[in-house]
Parts: sequence; structure tokens; C-alpha cells
Amino acid sequence: MAVPSSSSPSPRPTLSSPQARTRRTSNGTQLPPRKPPHIAIECVSPSLDDGRWAVKRILGDSLEVSADIFKDGHDILAARLRYKAPSAADWQTAPLVFDYDSDRWTGGVALDAIGSWTFTVDAWTDRFGTWRAQLEKKIDAGQDVSLELLEGAELVDTATHRVRFGDTRRELAQWASRLKYASAAWHERAREALDLKLLALMTQHLAPDDLTSYDRELRVWVDRERARFAAWYEMFPRSQSGDASRHGTFADAERALARVAELGFDVVYLPPIHPVGVTNRKGRDNTLTAAPGDPGSPWAIGGPAGGHTAIEPQLGTIDDFDRFVAAAHRLGMEVALDYALQCSPDHPWLREHPDWFFARPDGSLKYAENPPKKYEDIYPLDFWCADRDNLWMACRDILLFWISHGVHTFRVDNPHTKPFAFWHWVIDEIHARHPEIIFLSEAFTRPKRMKHLAKLGFTQSYTYFTWRTTARELQEYLEELTQRPPREYLRPNFFANTPDILHAYLQQGGRPAFRVRLLLAGTLSPLFGLYSGFELAENVPLKPGSEEYVHSEKYEIKARDWRAPESLDRDIVRLNRIRRDNRALQLADNLTFHRSENDRILFYRKTSADVGAPNDLLMAVNLDPARAQDTMVHVPLDALRLGADTPFVVEDLLTGARYTWRGSRNYVRLDPREEPGHVLIVRR
Amino acid sequence: MAVPSSSSPSPRPTLSSPQARTRRTSNGTQLPPRKPPHIAIECVSPSLDDGRWAVKRILGDSLEVSADIFKDGHDILAARLRYKAPSAADWQTAPLVFDYDSDRWTGGVALDAIGSWTFTVDAWTDRFGTWRAQLEKKIDAGQDVSLELLEGAELVDTATHRVRFGDTRRELAQWASRLKYASAAWHERAREALDLKLLALMTQHLAPDDLTSYDRELRVWVDRERARFAAWYEMFPRSQSGDASRHGTFADAERALARVAELGFDVVYLPPIHPVGVTNRKGRDNTLTAAPGDPGSPWAIGGPAGGHTAIEPQLGTIDDFDRFVAAAHRLGMEVALDYALQCSPDHPWLREHPDWFFARPDGSLKYAENPPKKYEDIYPLDFWCADRDNLWMACRDILLFWISHGVHTFRVDNPHTKPFAFWHWVIDEIHARHPEIIFLSEAFTRPKRMKHLAKLGFTQSYTYFTWRTTARELQEYLEELTQRPPREYLRPNFFANTPDILHAYLQQGGRPAFRVRLLLAGTLSPLFGLYSGFELAENVPLKPGSEEYVHSEKYEIKARDWRAPESLDRDIVRLNRIRRDNRALQLADNLTFHRSENDRILFYRKTSADVGAPNDLLMAVNLDPARAQDTMVHVPLDALRLGADTPFVVEDLLTGARYTWRGSRNYVRLDPREEPGHVLIVRR
Repeated sequence: MAVPSSSSPSPRPTLSSPQARTRRTSNGTQLPPRKPPHIAIECVSPSLDDGRWAVKRILGDSLEVSADIFKDGHDILAARLRYKAPSAADWQTAPLVFDYDSDRWTGGVALDAIGSWTFTVDAWTDRFGTWRAQLEKKIDAGQDVSLELLEGAELVDTATHRVRFGDTRRELAQWASRLKYASAAWHERAREALDLKLLALMTQHLAPDDLTSYDRELRVWVDRERARFAAWYEMFPRSQSGDASRHGTFADAERALARVAELGFDVVYLPPIHPVGVTNRKGRDNTLTAAPGDPGSPWAIGGPAGGHTAIEPQLGTIDDFDRFVAAAHRLGMEVALDYALQCSPDHPWLREHPDWFFARPDGSLKYAENPPKKYEDIYPLDFWCADRDNLWMACRDILLFWISHGVHTFRVDNPHTKPFAFWHWVIDEIHARHPEIIFLSEAFTRPKRMKHLAKLGFTQSYTYFTWRTTARELQEYLEELTQRPPREYLRPNFFANTPDILHAYLQQGGRPAFRVRLLLAGTLSPLFGLYSGFELAENVPLKPGSEEYVHSEKYEIKARDWRAPESLDRDIVRLNRIRRDNRALQLADNLTFHRSENDRILFYRKTSADVGAPNDLLMAVNLDPARAQDTMVHVPLDALRLGADTPFVVEDLLTGARYTWRGSRNYVRLDPREEPGHVLIVRR
Repeated sequence: MAVPSSSSPSPRPTLSSPQARTRRTSNGTQLPPRKPPHIAIECVSPSLDDGRWAVKRILGDSLEVSADIFKDGHDILAARLRYKAPSAADWQTAPLVFDYDSDRWTGGVALDAIGSWTFTVDAWTDRFGTWRAQLEKKIDAGQDVSLELLEGAELVDTATHRVRFGDTRRELAQWASRLKYASAAWHERAREALDLKLLALMTQHLAPDDLTSYDRELRVWVDRERARFAAWYEMFPRSQSGDASRHGTFADAERALARVAELGFDVVYLPPIHPVGVTNRKGRDNTLTAAPGDPGSPWAIGGPAGGHTAIEPQLGTIDDFDRFVAAAHRLGMEVALDYALQCSPDHPWLREHPDWFFARPDGSLKYAENPPKKYEDIYPLDFWCADRDNLWMACRDILLFWISHGVHTFRVDNPHTKPFAFWHWVIDEIHARHPEIIFLSEAFTRPKRMKHLAKLGFTQSYTYFTWRTTARELQEYLEELTQRPPREYLRPNFFANTPDILHAYLQQGGRPAFRVRLLLAGTLSPLFGLYSGFELAENVPLKPGSEEYVHSEKYEIKARDWRAPESLDRDIVRLNRIRRDNRALQLADNLTFHRSENDRILFYRKTSADVGAPNDLLMAVNLDPARAQDTMVHVPLDALRLGADTPFVVEDLLTGARYTWRGSRNYVRLDPREEPGHVLIVRR
């Protein structure tokens, strides 16, 4: 594949770009465009909203690029991928190759650095290749090609003039002479003209005269591995004392880390750890008045001890926090903090920067409300205030502060209630200095807004997973996420529960339902999370029909007995081990659903084709927590390269049980009193 | 719907636009963007390749625009379509309305002028509407809204300051006073605040503070009706003498027009009418040497009498041509000319502008070839020569010359062998002065190149229709053209035959096959065409396996007996009458296929929902020209609003026969010795 050596071509305008079309004579006649493109380059992929946003990839992925490239007539074309790595000053190139069946050009590059990559596509006419192909056809037809040989010599002369180095220049000049002047008959010279050595030289040295570039530069954002594959655990540090009457400290939380690590989690996510407001503090079960000793909601941020960069005094000091972070790191985990841009009535910003809030006609500041509901313990920020620059930078500096304390992941609270423009700016601003930072968007809102937040830069997103409980709902939603456009930019993080969401399925299904949802979350998505208490199947709602917990940890300190018999710890350990051992469970867009004849049993496949270590898993999950279900599942034999009638052994990674299956249709029975599902690997 | 009165807003940069993101402090910190957008506007439709090209519409069509529009939080938004008509200096606006189910904003404008339209979308926060909705909720909840009323008064004050005219200004000021100062209790004032008169005033006068525009201006090219609906007839004027030994003239051709008009055609298309080259002229049946008197191929353009703006002397003079055009116009038809940019060895340009051609090393000019084939009677132009400006302008001037002689339609020969950039420029250049001009692209090449020519400006395109003969092929191809992206920009013109294409289906199927293809072409596509001789079912190929005609008219003069008993004139008259009477056959994207239980019978529906004149046709066509076929067809009862078991009458517009049908499944039998198909209209 020919790649011209000029490494920084000046892209030509495209057919539709205005500068290609503005020459006029004095009488108003429009002259032909000055530098029109010779070649059409269209539908370059991957591209998100025509290059407005970056697609997302993970360090070590290969970026596979494809494009439609064509021009008029019958000339042979050549093309290349041109890309710039995150901190590279210059463009680099990789060949694109034509695939006749799809009529597409394809190529790729290994993404070996995190950060922002840029790429585009160049194409040009392969003059020498075209000439050579025509020469061959004429020779085959027995035509006299003397003139064609002289034309070829002209091409070689052009390449010769371009070469600076002596040997190559001499070599090319000799080829030109041989094509032009050799005393041999033309058919002898023709044989020389077709010499592959000449083709190689010319491919390397003949500069394109019609180099055309795609009219967009496209972007890829490359994250570290944890952005795609991680198990999250959410815990309130104040509940880690083991005694509901004593406010936990970071020292308590540090002691709790060992168990979390043993369960196999990668990320420990803490709700806000900042001073909790006192004024209008919420009492237990979200009541309007707090009793003495009630700790309040940690999302009511700010008190006498400070705001978003301070630590709630009852938790300890910043040094305690640093020790907590270091302990997590030693256990192979990282700490994620909550980034909730709102203030309690006692936040220092209300005094220092009242102009950052909404003022009312009576001079008071405006608390949060969603009429007729009022949230008097929370004041929203006015992101469009006159002092916007300083407010936005102060919000950014909160992130920088915690990054300097070892926090590399932020769970962002309700980003859909702050301007998109703010998120776009602040994420870019942080990523420019710290490309390793991960942002998880907690936006439970309409699909287009959730997607927009992912487009503008959020690394991961909360999803509707919690509310998708039937086979049909799960399949439709997962296909949308993993097979359609969101796969390029939205990374779902499947939380099985959160402090705000206790789904009716868990309330009604009890422990077996928790096991089902755990297995689904951890095998359908490489990113999943649990909020502490899940492992004890805590499932009592505030009231019937509510998704809020009774005695919600948002408003009180909890003490839990992790050794309780109903604990799901064994399930969690087992699942996280299987996830770490099986590459197929670490990827997002490798999911397919297959037929199960009973719609209470969901049957799906995750596969990884990594060179040397193919990994193929078949999951069957009984969605009915109350009853045993059986079904015939339809194994995709072709995809697994299994014969239509050959027996094969599948091993359940959950239990170690082995089954001999044969052909496509195979029997599965799942009893919720035993196991919620199978995670089957084909043994060959 | 609120439409701010400012008619020329300066669009704000969008999130992804670079100018929104380039402020830095002296220490390199990036400041927040200066004018970031407040609102996301995405997926504006219709849009072709993200606005690179114009979508196509017809005069009188409504342009239906839709968009995704959203922002953070809970504010109510407003939006408008902003558009500029072809010769308008200013933007105009039309409201966009939100549809909750699709989560899309939609609106439209009637396209009442041909030429280039531009449009985009604006959105803003409806501050007063948001305030009013929240006020209502608070009142309903019995909350004190005194402060809210003051906030509303501030909004009214803002609107007041903006109004220049006395009465409105006074009225608004009074509203503000009433909200602020009235002695009445707040709940009295609240009732006033919700007054619809105030809402109307505020909607009209409160200027948006966050007007955001879509980041592209999109284009629509609007053609006259003939661009979408027309029956074409191709004839060689030199064959119109009625005597194969006498070269026909324009006077002969003029006499032939009456019959063509009676057949119901709208466009008479003539192969090149210019002087035919003598040097290397092709003989009959494409032989290498012409016998004395052989007329040669009219596509070998140019001789002693001139080039592309001259008339072949044997046809007559330019005055004769003008008379021919006038006669066609009197009969309600227009004349289409062939635009074939190539030269015979005798074309004046070879002497006057040898630099417009490809030179060989021996100084000779290069004839056309597609190795190993040689076309020594044709010289291609070098569109990238040094004198490109003058060559391109000369090519443009050919079009202007014929336009000045009443030609408003050009059938462009092999556009895929000339640069895309040339077509883009020349079509734009002609359309800027003459938006009524129609260009038909004759590019039989790979799909992406055909589509690209349509995108860059060709009005209509030849298609693969000739080679689609089975039910499955026809359905797949028509669905691609009428239901997928090409529907926005590629208008297929279904030629049932051409001088180059006599398909095996016609060769083998004889007259019944011709009747089938005629019916398919004229009912599947609002644009269709016949090349003369079709009506006599001429179907003898040059040799077995060839799609060329024996005694091809391309190389000799033909005389035909139109009164021959095998004539299809009756079929043609009948079809063209039905097409003119039925709006459903005049539209392109209104086609759906429905089930037929025998795949030799194709069953499809064309529908038009024009207000006051709904038009619904069901076509059943027997694709087997040799045998009678029968089938059960499945009528789409829901779409036709017919009951599941109600009898209904269908009338065949071809024969006048009436059938009583009932329910979805109905019987059809078609015998090729009688009729090739049914064109059924439901009589209610």
C-alpha cells in the first residue's frame, strides 16, 4: 500500500466547503473552484454526530477505521489513515486497504496512550499502479506498448526529481533510461516495466498530485482499562463503626476495606464526605426536622467546617482521608468520590459568593424546588451568573483538590440539572491535565439527555438497568446499548441498587431476586455496582409503592452484620472471580441474545476473540425468583464453530457442574433455591 | 408558540465548535468558554451527510423539519424553524412544536419557489412560560406566591423595556404594576398573573436571553414538478424520415412529435444532434470502418461544421431546431438534449485547444480506451489540464447556449467518467441562473458513485431497474430507493430500454415481456422512459448474450412502421393517462410492497394523502411473460381503513373491470395473453 512520505499534507477543501467555491470574474461569472477535491471521501467511521464528539476506546484497543473512497473514471486509488496520538506533535499514517465486497476502505491503529486522539483519511490516485495495470492488459492483448513505456518513463522521471538521496535517485534514473532508451524491443522493456522492484520504488517515491483529505478531523477519547471493566461498591463511611449510635470515621471505613477487597470490588464509592449542613437538616426517613444526633443527608453539603473541599469533622481529617485512600490502593482498589454541585444553607459559598446563587426579589437566596416540592436544605448554583468564570473555575478546583488527594474517579450527582456547557468544559479541562480521570454520570432522565452527557465527555453512565426486569426489556435495552450507536460513546454501569432505588422486583422477590439481579448486572455489563446492604438482601421500602428504603441510610447511620446467614458474599466473590478470569465479561459490545423457549429464562452469549485466548461464555438466567423454570435454549453453533450434531461439554463456572450438550437445542432447568443461572463455558 | 421578533439572530457557537473553547489565562488555565450554548440541538432532519449536500423537494411540497432539542433542568423550551427562500435576503421563521412521544420538535414550511432554500433551527428558554407553569403548581398546592409574583413582575418589566410602541409598552407596564402593587391579596393577583392575555403579550415581547442555533445551515433544493413526474421518450431525429435510406431532418422529427404527444409523453429526449465525426467513424453494428453513407455514432461529436453548439448539417439548421422545440412546447412537451463531453477526431477543440486533451509522448492526442478496448472515434477531455478554467467554462457555455434555445432538460452522458468537482460546479453555476434546469445522470456504475452524483446536484438518475426482473430484486431495489436515504436526494428515472440496453428478459419474453416492463416502469416510478422501438417490441440482440441491438440505431438510420399490429401504443396511452389522473403515481416515496403468495406476481401499493383527494392504488403485475399465474394477494386493510370482513369493490383502471373483494386475502389471476397486470383503485 502506497503511503506518500510527505507527513503533513495541507488538506484540500472538499466539494461542499465554501472556500472551494468563491471565485468570480468581474462580470459576476463564477470561475471554477481553485482547488477542488479530486476524490470523494465519505462516511468515515467511527464518527459520532459527524465528528462533533469523540468516540470512546480503551488503552490497547485497536481503532478500526473505514471509509467510502472513490473518484470518476477507472484509475486505481490509494488511501491512508492519518492520526495524531495524544501528545504527538506530528501526524502519523497507516495504510487503508480496499475491500471489494463492502466497497469500503479499512485500516487501523493500536491505541497505545490514553487521552485525545485525532484522525482523518487521505486518498490519492495511484498513478503508477494505474499505468502498470493498463500496461499489463495491453501486453496481454498483444498491443504495441512503446508509447506506454515512454509514459511510464515520464512517471519514473517525476519520482526521480523528488528523491534527495543519491542511491535511490540513481536507481530510479536507471529505470527511466531502461524504459526509454534500451536497445531491446518494446516487449523486452515491457517485462522490465512490470518488475516488482520498480513498483516498490515508485510506490514509495511518486508523490500524489491529487492528495485529498476527508473534510473532518475525527476524535477518539482513550481511557484506562478501569473505565470499561470494574466492580463498584458504594458505602457510607459514617456507617462503618459497626454501631448505629456512633458516627463512623475514616479509620472505621479503612478497616471495612479488607472485606470489600475480598468480595472482589475494584472501586469503593463514597457519598459526599463533606461537612453536612445543619440549617433545615433532614431527619430520619426524610422528615422535615432532624432530631438531635441525626446526621442529615450527606448531599446537603457545607457547614461551619467548610464546603466541597472540607471533610465532615465526625469522619476525621484530610490526613485520615489520605490514609483511607492509601489503604484502598494497597488492596488494589481505588476510591470514587461523589461530586454534587449544590450547597446546604451553611455552605461558606452562600456568604462568600451570594452572587453564585439565585436571588429572590426580597434579597433572599433561592433554595431548590421542583414545584410544588421544596428542598430547603439545598441551594442550587446559578451557573449562568455574572461571575460565571469564577464559579466554574471554583467547581473545577474542587475536582483538582481531590485528584491531588488520590481520587481518580468521580460519581457525578444529577449532572442533567447543570448546564451541558459546564460539563463539556470542566471534563475537558480536567482531562487535559489528568486523562486518567473517570466521570460517572448519575443522570436518570430522558434518553437523549443521558446520551448527550455521555457524548460531551462522561466516561460512564448510570442506566435504566434497575427498571428492566423481563427478558424482553433486558434484551431490547442491552441491544440498544451494545449494538447501536451508544456503543461508541456511552458506557453503562449497571448498579443493581442505589440508596435511591430499591426496585419492586427486589422488594417482592427477596434474596433469590437479589441473586438474579447480581448475576445479570455482572454478566451483562463489564461495569456493575452494588450499594452496601445489597449483600444482605435489604429490601423493605419506606412505604408500599416507594423505591425508597425504610430507615434510609441517606438520613441515618446504619450498622450491619455481614456474617448474617442470608449474606450474598459467596455469590459476589464467585462472580467477581469469574469476571476477572474471563475476558469476555470485561468487554461491552460483545453481547448477543439467543433463543430460549421459555421467556422466564434469558439466554445470552459474551465472547472475546483475543488472539491466543478466545473466550466464549453462554449465560442462562432464571428471571423468576419464585419458581423453578426450564427451557430449551438455542446454542449458536455456527458462531461457536460446533457441528450440527456433535456432542460438546459445557461447564458451569458458578458450580463446576458439567453437561454434555448436542446440537443447537439443549435443555436447561434452574431452581431459584439452588442457583439463579448458569455461566457456561464450552470445553472442547 | 413563541417566536422572538428579532429576525436575524447572531447564532451562538455550539458545544463542539472551537471558538467556544479558546480562552486561556496567562498561566495556561483554560477559562470557561465565552458564549457557550445553553441548549442542545441535535439530529435536525432532513439533512444529507450532515448538511454537506442539499436534500431535494418539489415546488409546492411542504418541508417537514424535526429536531432533538433539550437542556438541563426543568425549564420549558421554545423553538423555531428559521429559513431563507431562494431569492430572499432575510430569514423567516415558523414555529416548532414539541411531540412528547417521539421526544422531537417538528414544524414545516411550504416550498413556494424553485431554487436553493436554507434552513436551520433556533431554540430558547421560555422564561415566562416556565415561571407561569411553576406558579400554577404552587397555587394548586396552596402555597404563598407573593415572591413569585414579584419575580413575574420582573419578567414583565424586562419585556416592557424592550417594546418601542406606546400602547403595548403601556399595557405591559400596567400588568407589571398589577402583579407588584395591587392592593388585592396575592391570590387575587395570582389569578391576574395567569391571564392568557398576559401570556400572549409576553410570548410576543419577552426576548430570549439564551437563543441557541443549530450548528449547521442545511439546504433544500426545490425543483419544478417535471423533475419528479414525467414520461420520457427517446428518439433519434435522423430516423424520422420514414425511409432508412434518407437522413431525417428536424422537420421530419417535428412531424413525428404529434404521435409522441398522443402517446402521453412529457419529455422528448434526443441523442446528440451535433455534427458527427468522420475520422475513424464507426460503421453499422459498431464495425471499425464506416461504409459510404453510414451516419456514424452521434456520440462522436464534432466535425467540420462545428462542435457541441453546432447542428449536424443533415438534420438542418439551428432555426430548424428552434422550430422543433417550439412545436414540442405547443404539444405540451419539452425537449431534452444529450450532454456528452467528448470529441470526435474532427471536433474543432482538438485544433483550437489541443491542451484540453491528453497528450502522448509522441505529441499525438490520446483517444479513449478502457484497456484493452480502444475507442478511436472519441477523445476524452483532460478536465485537470492547466487551462482548466477555460475548459470548464466552455463546457458550461454549451449548456447556456442550448438553454437559450429553449432546452431545459439535459440527459448527461457518462458523468461518472468526468470529475465530481466539475459537475458540482457546473450544475450549481447553471442552477444559480436557471433553477428550472433538469439534469439526468446516465451513470451505470457502482452504487456509491451513482449516489454521489445525485448528491452533488443531478436532478434525476438512470438506475439498475432494467436489470431487476424478479419480485425479490424489484422489491429490494425499490425499497432502497424509496424508503431509505436515497429518497432524499436520488430521483430514479426508470428507462424500460435504452439504445445500449436490451435486457435478456425482453429478448426472451417478447411482446408480453415488454408490456410487463412498461407497466412496472410507469407504476413503480413517477419518472419513466422508453427508447423508441420499445413500442414495437424490438428485441433482437446483436448476438446471443449481448444487450446490444442488432442493426443498432446508434450506427444506422431506422425506419419503423408505427401501425404494426404488435404496437404497444394502446398500452402506453392507457398507462400515461392513468398516471396523469392519479396523484399516487406522481410521487416517489409513497410505495409499499405487500404479500403475494406466488412470487411471480408482484403486489404493491401507491398512495397519496393529498387533502380532499386521497388516491390509493393497488398494483398486481404478473412477472411471467410466458404463463398465466394466479395468487392470493394480501390487501393492507388497516392502511386502507377497510374492515376485516367487509366486502369492497376494486376497479381495474386498465380494463374497467370491477371485482368484489373481502378481507385481506384476495384472488388474482393474470394471463399474459390478456393483460400484464391490474391497476386497482378501491371504490368505496
